[in-house]
Amino acid sequence: MSTRGPVLIIGTGLLGTSLALALRAAGVEVQLSDTSPTSLALARDMGAGVPHDEDSPEPQIVVVAIPPDVTADVVVAQLAAHPHAVVTDVASVKERVVAEVRARAGAEARRYVGSHPMAGRERSGAAAADSDLFAGRPWVVVGQDSDPEAELVIRNLAVDVGATPVRMGAVEHDAAVAAVSHMPQLIASLVAARLEALGESALALSGQGLRDVTRIAASDPRLWSAIIVGNAGPVADLLRQISADLGALIECIEAAACEPDSSEHTAPGAAHTIAPGAVGAVTDVMARGNTGRARIPGKHGGAPRRYAEVQVLVPDAAGELGRLFSDIGAAGVNIEDFSLEHSAGQSAGIALISVLPAAAQGLEEALDAKGWRVVAG
Amino acid sequence: MSTRGPVLIIGTGLLGTSLALALRAAGVEVQLSDTSPTSLALARDMGAGVPHDEDSPEPQIVVVAIPPDVTADVVVAQLAAHPHAVVTDVASVKERVVAEVRARAGAEARRYVGSHPMAGRERSGAAAADSDLFAGRPWVVVGQDSDPEAELVIRNLAVDVGATPVRMGAVEHDAAVAAVSHMPQLIASLVAARLEALGESALALSGQGLRDVTRIAASDPRLWSAIIVGNAGPVADLLRQISADLGALIECIEAAACEPDSSEHTAPGAAHTIAPGAVGAVTDVMARGNTGRARIPGKHGGAPRRYAEVQVLVPDAAGELGRLFSDIGAAGVNIEDFSLEHSAGQSAGIALISVLPAAAQGLEEALDAKGWRVVAG
Repeated sequence: MSTRGPVLIIGTGLLGTSLALALRAAGVEVQLSDTSPTSLALARDMGAGVPHDEDSPEPQIVVVAIPPDVTADVVVAQLAAHPHAVVTDVASVKERVVAEVRARAGAEARRYVGSHPMAGRERSGAAAADSDLFAGRPWVVVGQDSDPEAELVIRNLAVDVGATPVRMGAVEHDAAVAAVSHMPQLIASLVAARLEALGESALALSGQGLRDVTRIAASDPRLWSAIIVGNAGPVADLLRQISADLGALIECIEAAACEPDSSEHTAPGAAHTIAPGAVGAVTDVMARGNTGRARIPGKHGGAPRRYAEVQVLVPDAAGELGRLFSDIGAAGVNIEDFSLEHSAGQSAGIALISVLPAAAQGLEEALDAKGWRVVAG
Repeated sequence: MSTRGPVLIIGTGLLGTSLALALRAAGVEVQLSDTSPTSLALARDMGAGVPHDEDSPEPQIVVVAIPPDVTADVVVAQLAAHPHAVVTDVASVKERVVAEVRARAGAEARRYVGSHPMAGRERSGAAAADSDLFAGRPWVVVGQDSDPEAELVIRNLAVDVGATPVRMGAVEHDAAVAAVSHMPQLIASLVAARLEALGESALALSGQGLRDVTRIAASDPRLWSAIIVGNAGPVADLLRQISADLGALIECIEAAACEPDSSEHTAPGAAHTIAPGAVGAVTDVMARGNTGRARIPGKHGGAPRRYAEVQVLVPDAAGELGRLFSDIGAAGVNIEDFSLEHSAGQSAGIALISVLPAAAQGLEEALDAKGWRVVAG
């Protein structure tokens, strides 16, 4: 714990309150401020800290955790109000905020370090706060024009709440979050918007796929409109690319829709010759999607391609998983990722073990020798 | 259990093998057939049934579980091969398949009942099969031109594997799945396709939102191109609507991107007056997305959960997973499902352990006592 405190947190929404809870859990003194007395009282009652007032001790760090369109104003004001504090913000867009603070705060801006913890959820407000929100998540630190000491203070703050600091330029950050966050958010909303007028019997057929695609469509329009407008250039570029891909896809699919009767039957069991152009177009988009999806680091089918996956049949009996892990350990192989395809009523599950490619064959042989059924991937 | 069996399942992919496992779990005799000997052997080894051959007893039901573009041919062939069986298929598109079978099989088509269990996952093949795949899911039965007795046989089959039969016309079905399944699938693939060329540092910022939006982008291109082309009309209509919404949104966002300097500062802390048109357009799309998302049936917009999830922070060090499994075993708790959220360069991953709800609190306490960091779900 390198953060001494006190830490003044401006804005007791999801991020501000979660950060406050994480710091309080680590014993750091936290002062809270919010324009909404209700939100402030809720955060205080959750144990996130005490309301900031004129008698509060001077903060070591001020964290501005409010929507991006109002962030720069408040950062500038806080630099003036607390002349010895390091000031940071957690807004999802960085270039405009950083540029505006530099332009308006002059030399004082050296005490400002823009940052962006890559954490959030589709619910907003203090009530959704979680002291573990930052655990294991990247925390972008944009410190190229800041005092190195100020940057270190913010890096330590990130580490102290379990996040991993990642240094990035503001422009690089904004392009990255446009691709991994802002564009997907808008597309999810566009898909969900199509459900507004859908019939009940059709909605009743909804499955987990639709739920997952549209989960973030439940996000706060007020916050997100500020984020999107604050990062309009990179977001618009990506949407244009999606739009071009979509237009080409529609043309091919409509061509298929118009010629269903041109199919010629070949041997039973063989594929029809319906609209090979549309098949090719859909296959191409899907295959590109497969590739892109596989590049996302982390869980659920998203293991980075640099790992090989070993699949093993695991009997549904107590102790079998423990025995599998013991045998993997005995083989001297480190597990990079692991998941289990398993459900009640089945006599066996499939363990998906991601390992470095060089280790895969040896692991398969070792597990085979121990009597495990290794499945072709 | 009204299904007497034997049930002959043609195609040991995800749906066919899952159905076979569910029927076997209920004691029904299952015969399996697949053009791939590897897939057939895997399904057999998983306990899904025995390979069908000339000496097999005549089936009561034949289930054709192969891609939609080849379904009608095989249904027609099976109606001829098994003159006393009820034949069904599980293809995701119904109008073309039903029409083709009616046109080609004549009066024999009265023994055919088109159906579509609303179940699936982004992984395909027998290795991903799950006897619980149909539990609690709708199973569409398109029986308007079938013998009522044949329709009843298929409704009972659905009930016997835990699904809920839903009667629908073929056209109504195809329009519904275009909206809740086919269009979202293509849009998820378009989003994921944008990640193909994205830099590693940007990808490292990926969060759960992107993972959820793109999860189904990992689906099989061969299968999905046949589905989309088989339902081209309704899918193209929806994509046109998305495209129009997207085009309007891009125009408003680009207007904001071009006029960032026209903002006028008002009082500190107040919203800027940047591009109110763009703010309005994004807010509108997001609000419509909120409304559409909220219409998806299911508690909190999520799938009904049979299991409780315990989340534990796992240090990235050799042996930690083995120690975790050992501690879970010592607590006497059976793991229903397990996955690891883990990405390179992070000092810790998060293990997601699914257990019966009654066991969750005890497991959390046991792991806490062993020094594990249990994360709020």
